[in-house]
Amino acid sequence: MKILDLVSTTDARLSLALGDAIDNKTKPLGSLGRLEELARQIGLVQATTTPTILDPAILVFAGDHGVVAEGVSAYPQEVTWQMVENFLAGGAAINVFARQNACAIHVVDAGVNHAFGERAGLIDRKVAFGTRNFAVEPAMSGDECAGALERGFALMRDLPGNVVGFGEMGIGNTTAAAALMHKLTGAPAGQCVGAGTGLSPDGVLRKQSVIEAAVRKHAGVADPLDVLATFGGFEIAMMAGAMLEGARMRKLLLIDGFIVTSALLVAARLQPAILDYCVFAHCSSEHGHRLMLEHLHAKPLLHLNLRLGEGTGSALCLPLLHAAVNFLNQMATFSSAQVSERAD
Amino acid sequence: MKILDLVSTTDARLSLALGDAIDNKTKPLGSLGRLEELARQIGLVQATTTPTILDPAILVFAGDHGVVAEGVSAYPQEVTWQMVENFLAGGAAINVFARQNACAIHVVDAGVNHAFGERAGLIDRKVAFGTRNFAVEPAMSGDECAGALERGFALMRDLPGNVVGFGEMGIGNTTAAAALMHKLTGAPAGQCVGAGTGLSPDGVLRKQSVIEAAVRKHAGVADPLDVLATFGGFEIAMMAGAMLEGARMRKLLLIDGFIVTSALLVAARLQPAILDYCVFAHCSSEHGHRLMLEHLHAKPLLHLNLRLGEGTGSALCLPLLHAAVNFLNQMATFSSAQVSERAD
Repeated sequence: MKILDLVSTTDARLSLALGDAIDNKTKPLGSLGRLEELARQIGLVQATTTPTILDPAILVFAGDHGVVAEGVSAYPQEVTWQMVENFLAGGAAINVFARQNACAIHVVDAGVNHAFGERAGLIDRKVAFGTRNFAVEPAMSGDECAGALERGFALMRDLPGNVVGFGEMGIGNTTAAAALMHKLTGAPAGQCVGAGTGLSPDGVLRKQSVIEAAVRKHAGVADPLDVLATFGGFEIAMMAGAMLEGARMRKLLLIDGFIVTSALLVAARLQPAILDYCVFAHCSSEHGHRLMLEHLHAKPLLHLNLRLGEGTGSALCLPLLHAAVNFLNQMATFSSAQVSERAD
Repeated sequence: MKILDLVSTTDARLSLALGDAIDNKTKPLGSLGRLEELARQIGLVQATTTPTILDPAILVFAGDHGVVAEGVSAYPQEVTWQMVENFLAGGAAINVFARQNACAIHVVDAGVNHAFGERAGLIDRKVAFGTRNFAVEPAMSGDECAGALERGFALMRDLPGNVVGFGEMGIGNTTAAAALMHKLTGAPAGQCVGAGTGLSPDGVLRKQSVIEAAVRKHAGVADPLDVLATFGGFEIAMMAGAMLEGARMRKLLLIDGFIVTSALLVAARLQPAILDYCVFAHCSSEHGHRLMLEHLHAKPLLHLNLRLGEGTGSALCLPLLHAAVNFLNQMATFSSAQVSERAD
């Protein structure tokens, strides 16, 4: 497996041109706030002053987690495959929000503990029937982890469009994400764990203990890819791979909640320039997400106390991306509309 | 002029039914956060467990302000009518965002200091060619203010659809809105004034002095309608009227930024139950808006540092309203999708 180098989108000349285009629109300077920053970012990613949103798609990666044996989730493991069926039937939240926003969704079996057989609409990239329990042994072998990343690269190469959102489903995956966060940011485990799908306060403490004990057990692990293999999940590794390849292709990446951002933590340790390509859809109400975003100096677009995953935040922020591109491409300028400029 | 009584949307039985419907959807309890609150609110306003968003429209009210003679704006007064022309030509930010979200816009001349003549698409409800300078005399007479409110009532009665957003244009109207806020909330003038379209810090201080002097001058004014007439604007009064009538018709009201919220301050003093019908689109970066929202116990949906007005926040939050209604109407339930519920 080879991870290709990413380049920053920095371009002083284009940035100035975008700033001029934004400032000449018929509105007070800076008055579209975050949408102006977003328009500039999308322009830089696409290397143009007239950016577009073409064929947006959300990839929903599903995987199971051996660590559920430790009692770290409010829901049984079978909910992972049942929700995959729900995605395929069109009845989940991500289906509703993607339909509303004319966004394709692609459901990927990265490593669900279930034999789906041939299922129309399901992209089978299963690495194994769930990871191993990282409380006992590494979640993945190095080869499994590399395989997941590579399948992520390849998936992205097959995807049309210039905007890709990420989503996931996997009972137990907030535990994996919290462990990754703890290892990769250095934040205490207590600041990384949260209620996930709805653990009791006692359950959250148990989750914290499981992570702390596992981190002691695998004390020597420090390299980001080793951390990913030891504590991560197939869906998390496959997302990290897809993100890296997506940025290399200069696609805009929509980063959803806690688990998706944990995949980005890994990708950003490998290729820090990936952050130039990321739009942070929302700040979730999962306890560790805010701190994780701060660690990445990320400014999320939405603050809606979502904690559902599936890429729901990615889908919900899509209208803001359209708004950013549309104001830049469609608004009149002071001169074209013959509107007077400021007096000073 | 008669202001009709508004009733609260409170309905314990319907609220429970909505809560059950929301909780049975295939997602962890509460995991759609603000969208769940929004779905419940829209259901209560429409008195149904299957709410809809029908023919959403944004009313953009334009008016001029005599207080601009005090040098309280970064832009000349003529920008008000020039921007109205921009709205009619489709080149302003509100046009772009309304088009994107399949939302009608209706531009209303509430009192612009300009003779438009017959202009296709412009709704002429002009009360006068701008208000008087409230630093010198009341901005409106009682009759003018009542006339503006009544025209607001009538406009709303002619509007189809069940969701109406509010927007405005008026050079100088952050000064009027800040004065209303100061009088109606009791917050010190220094906490109510902001940079508007882009005043310098010195300009903001001057604006504050103008308001403080005017409030001393009109010291006896306390009744909300008198406060509105003395310090408000034609577009602000007409919005307040339209809001009151809209709530009476059980329409959902989308409250935009600082000036729209100042109109609601007046309406809510007259009929506190109006707040049940209001969705607060965003927290603007105009200095006083956050405090104004807190005074109303309002929780805005978007936090994008917008400060453009025109109803841009109203238009941008529309996809979230659709998302709230869509998840409630379209998502599968645990039983319909045969997904296992929580273990506890």
